[in-house]
Amino acid sequence: MSAVQAQEIQQRRGVQVVSPEIGGDNTVTFRLYAEDAHSVTVSGSWLGMGENLEMKKGSDGVWSATTKALEPSMYHYNFMLDGVSILDPRNPKALRDGTRYASTLIVPGKASDVFEVQDVPHGTIHKVWYDSPTLGLYRRMLVYTPAGYEDSKEKYPVLYLLHGGGGDEEAWSSLGRANNILDNLIAAGKAKPMLVVMTNGNELQTSSVTEWPTNTNVVDRGPARGGETREQTVDRVTKFPNSLVNDVIPYVEKHFRVIANSENRAIAGLSMGSMQTQITTMTNPGFFEYIGCFSLGIHFNDQFEIVSNEILIPGYDKYLETMDNKLFYTGCGTEDFCYEGVQTLRKKLDEHNFEYVYNETGGGHTWANWRTYLSDYAPRLFK
Amino acid sequence: MSAVQAQEIQQRRGVQVVSPEIGGDNTVTFRLYAEDAHSVTVSGSWLGMGENLEMKKGSDGVWSATTKALEPSMYHYNFMLDGVSILDPRNPKALRDGTRYASTLIVPGKASDVFEVQDVPHGTIHKVWYDSPTLGLYRRMLVYTPAGYEDSKEKYPVLYLLHGGGGDEEAWSSLGRANNILDNLIAAGKAKPMLVVMTNGNELQTSSVTEWPTNTNVVDRGPARGGETREQTVDRVTKFPNSLVNDVIPYVEKHFRVIANSENRAIAGLSMGSMQTQITTMTNPGFFEYIGCFSLGIHFNDQFEIVSNEILIPGYDKYLETMDNKLFYTGCGTEDFCYEGVQTLRKKLDEHNFEYVYNETGGGHTWANWRTYLSDYAPRLFK
Repeated sequence: MSAVQAQEIQQRRGVQVVSPEIGGDNTVTFRLYAEDAHSVTVSGSWLGMGENLEMKKGSDGVWSATTKALEPSMYHYNFMLDGVSILDPRNPKALRDGTRYASTLIVPGKASDVFEVQDVPHGTIHKVWYDSPTLGLYRRMLVYTPAGYEDSKEKYPVLYLLHGGGGDEEAWSSLGRANNILDNLIAAGKAKPMLVVMTNGNELQTSSVTEWPTNTNVVDRGPARGGETREQTVDRVTKFPNSLVNDVIPYVEKHFRVIANSENRAIAGLSMGSMQTQITTMTNPGFFEYIGCFSLGIHFNDQFEIVSNEILIPGYDKYLETMDNKLFYTGCGTEDFCYEGVQTLRKKLDEHNFEYVYNETGGGHTWANWRTYLSDYAPRLFK
Repeated sequence: MSAVQAQEIQQRRGVQVVSPEIGGDNTVTFRLYAEDAHSVTVSGSWLGMGENLEMKKGSDGVWSATTKALEPSMYHYNFMLDGVSILDPRNPKALRDGTRYASTLIVPGKASDVFEVQDVPHGTIHKVWYDSPTLGLYRRMLVYTPAGYEDSKEKYPVLYLLHGGGGDEEAWSSLGRANNILDNLIAAGKAKPMLVVMTNGNELQTSSVTEWPTNTNVVDRGPARGGETREQTVDRVTKFPNSLVNDVIPYVEKHFRVIANSENRAIAGLSMGSMQTQITTMTNPGFFEYIGCFSLGIHFNDQFEIVSNEILIPGYDKYLETMDNKLFYTGCGTEDFCYEGVQTLRKKLDEHNFEYVYNETGGGHTWANWRTYLSDYAPRLFK
């Protein structure tokens, strides 16, 4: 078929190396053919902030480095080629995190099985546009429907799943592998078949940057910062939660076969999405029976102090005594910079003798943890 | 919100340049901060094969280059940094073509309006898995439903749209911008609302590489080559067309609200997809009223000689005298290496006094042309 290759992005000439190569011992070897480079390093999600793995150049112009044995997980990485962050040109798997790209790999093993592509029925991802009068925007979201949805007449419960700061509506499927996790848990009978709605939580954005018209100023669509009054901060941070309840949920409940009641509505979010989850549930008590807060709690720094004092603490103090929702779940890594805030949230729950599930893991503010929390949270829903 | 930035892919330090910058005169300036590099060039889809634009280093470590004025179109490009092909780290828009990544930009203007993201209603893209007993695979395809599909009870016509060699089921939406083109044509009343089904035409693949399990050997999923008998070649090249008719179309007609008859069925393909379009329609005469062959006709070289002699020419000779389908469309660029083959196809059609539409453009075997042909073909369908 070589005569009809229709690809305009040209294959590189030169030494065709294998990279990444995952060894039987879970070490990973990276290779880059770069005859003329001064220096090449690897930065990767298994390394600490600012840490790099140095690559060494062989006589054939191929730079290489091998990691220590890595825990089974999904990782992303870039090569630093003479100081510039690049993709691994030999790895066909890359992903986008906000405005940046990285190569990705999975070290196989038991912990990776839950988000690996398995030989099980796969759900459908719908990339849907909807009107948000609350935000004054026509916006995009991703809706996962479980395998079998198209062939049944059944109605399903729904999990609303919120990303973190810098992310967008594609983060939970690409970095978080939410669709793979649900495919696998549902196929194994560990989670009930459910829809997962993945929204864009940035109240000024219509969608991920990939769908913006040419020359849209990235800064104009970024988070507002600084110079706000308390009222402006509260107004801004409640906008997306309000649009979720007023615009997203009615759209989903009208256009998909879902069970439209609180027993069949779950919400969870990571980091900024955990803040939005708390705001949404504390300003709409009783609307969700299942609440998941990943890697962010009640904080007293930055703009969170305002959010904590104006919404979260008054909300918990007002509602926790009478709230009887089926699950309140929180998870955090011991090395997470948000660890203290999650402990403050736990103290608040304890203070009101409110039952909750707490999953403390190692590690920090990472997708490795958020995949773990989703894999632990989803099986507890709608049961 | 800086405290809850949940991105693990770190922002680069150093000079924060703007790249690409599209000037009012349609020149494009590229910039890369790379203090330590020896040489940086740009390779782009507006340049000839093997041509590069040289970048020059300023005293601030920023390399830059400006193109001549470019025609309004969508382009993709890579920087060559010390001989390694990289993305533009300052451009948040990138795309994947098979196993390779490139940065992308749109030079605005009348010719770009048809595929630009406009302020019009957007259709939904469904990423759907289906069984293909014909290929013995569980496979993925993309289905575009037009804006309003979710809110109506109407049934719609369907265009089956096939990619070229090296591509996959995501090529027509990412490189081809088929969903943007249809959104815009439908909103302007120029095309009828229709579904567009974008399949994976590689008969050994389940899906694009991004959905494969870890460590799947890319070679195992690539096109079979060489050492085949005539029968094996015919068998191989008819496999995907057979699966389209036996597996894909029944799935779509069962699971989406479509009008399941030949008057409401169109097919089109580019390059390898044009060969598959011809095979499908010549082995299933009367099944599609609308046939579109972009940038590939009847060829007498490589394995195409077998396909041409065994299927296409006998098919045309047998059916053209009695075929009365509503549209046969073919398009080709004057610089396309497939130009002669398209002229051979035209001669065959002329020989039988068969009416067709021919769109001859400048340029070669490029997505710029395929977007143009789709934009010209879609408005002619279902009328």
